[in-house]
Amino acid sequence: MAKINVVKSVFEANDAAAGENRRRMEQAGVLGVNITSAPGSGKTLLLEKTIPALGRELRSAVIVGDLQTTRDAERLGGLAVEVVQINTEGGCHLSAGQVSEALNGLVMKDLSFLFIENVGNMVCPAGFDLGEHVRVAMLSVPEGDDKVAKYNTLFQPADVILLNKIDLTDVLGYDTSRVRDDLSRINTRAPLIELSAKTGRGMDEWINWLRTRRSQQNA
Amino acid sequence: MAKINVVKSVFEANDAAAGENRRRMEQAGVLGVNITSAPGSGKTLLLEKTIPALGRELRSAVIVGDLQTTRDAERLGGLAVEVVQINTEGGCHLSAGQVSEALNGLVMKDLSFLFIENVGNMVCPAGFDLGEHVRVAMLSVPEGDDKVAKYNTLFQPADVILLNKIDLTDVLGYDTSRVRDDLSRINTRAPLIELSAKTGRGMDEWINWLRTRRSQQNA
Repeated sequence: MAKINVVKSVFEANDAAAGENRRRMEQAGVLGVNITSAPGSGKTLLLEKTIPALGRELRSAVIVGDLQTTRDAERLGGLAVEVVQINTEGGCHLSAGQVSEALNGLVMKDLSFLFIENVGNMVCPAGFDLGEHVRVAMLSVPEGDDKVAKYNTLFQPADVILLNKIDLTDVLGYDTSRVRDDLSRINTRAPLIELSAKTGRGMDEWINWLRTRRSQQNA
Repeated sequence: MAKINVVKSVFEANDAAAGENRRRMEQAGVLGVNITSAPGSGKTLLLEKTIPALGRELRSAVIVGDLQTTRDAERLGGLAVEVVQINTEGGCHLSAGQVSEALNGLVMKDLSFLFIENVGNMVCPAGFDLGEHVRVAMLSVPEGDDKVAKYNTLFQPADVILLNKIDLTDVLGYDTSRVRDDLSRINTRAPLIELSAKTGRGMDEWINWLRTRRSQQNA
């Protein structure tokens, strides 16, 4: 019983911090975007391409979660207004408390988007609300077309699903219809956007989706 | 403090069960192989190619961990002597207790290898000894060449490192030297075997490595 109580209080504390993060971002007119995926699906490259494509008038900051290293933060440093790296020291997901601390170090006025690059993991980040307005679940072609069914807890709460690395669809014989089929059973609310952050194909649809969501928030 | 105590007792219970699993496998002359990687690195295809390549005299059983679905178990069903599927129902790793239960359902005499396909996750499985004799940490080319440094807790305790999908090295401009460089800092004990389970390249080296380990155990 002790264990269950501990776990429950962890989630309650996280949800309280998440609610506060959401309120702080809304007051500043910032759309919080939590990006979840397996390791190596291309979260950092997606952000490297997304931030400039949003245009000069829509400024972004990034919070990057990683077990170790500051490599992603270094990659993003020149593009975003500010980048905050959170080293989880072995932790398998970001928590709302960690994001709250990162927010303390950010100047949010003049920002439009706060992207949160979660720890590369298809399991743990699913259960933790960080206070985001938009949850992104990304998968990539080389991971195989069975991931939506296998990691359904990641894809169920997502507001948008990104299928990255579609430049490899032909060479790998990837079956997109299987992904659509699995999604139709667990999440019919979120659009599936097929793209390649590398070649740029499909990026327009993603950028437009982000812009629309931001303008809805501030309407 | 309550939380720390709970976590400590979880690890102690796991380690006790792991020791018992190891003893049971050794008594039966079975080499336990725990395979860890990100989702979609190719664990199941690796096993589909490994089990027949070991030859008729070396028989294998497989324990497959997944959050949901029995897809991997179905893929492996025709190849291994026995396949046991463990659905973790949201859990991000297998535990020694789950493997212990699976062992109860296996006839271990006449087996040479017990492969344990862990949950696709580069974080959580690292901390849990399942009672294996050999820990395999696999990464794959499309995940990028920075994964060893970022997920060092997975690669540090590994007895062998597999770099899968090397058929995509050229098309993706993959830098294997970066992987070797990162490994030289955290794990100089484990060999790095580059292979493609899809094309078969490098599989001989992996099969020979497994055979050697098994014969050392029974020497």
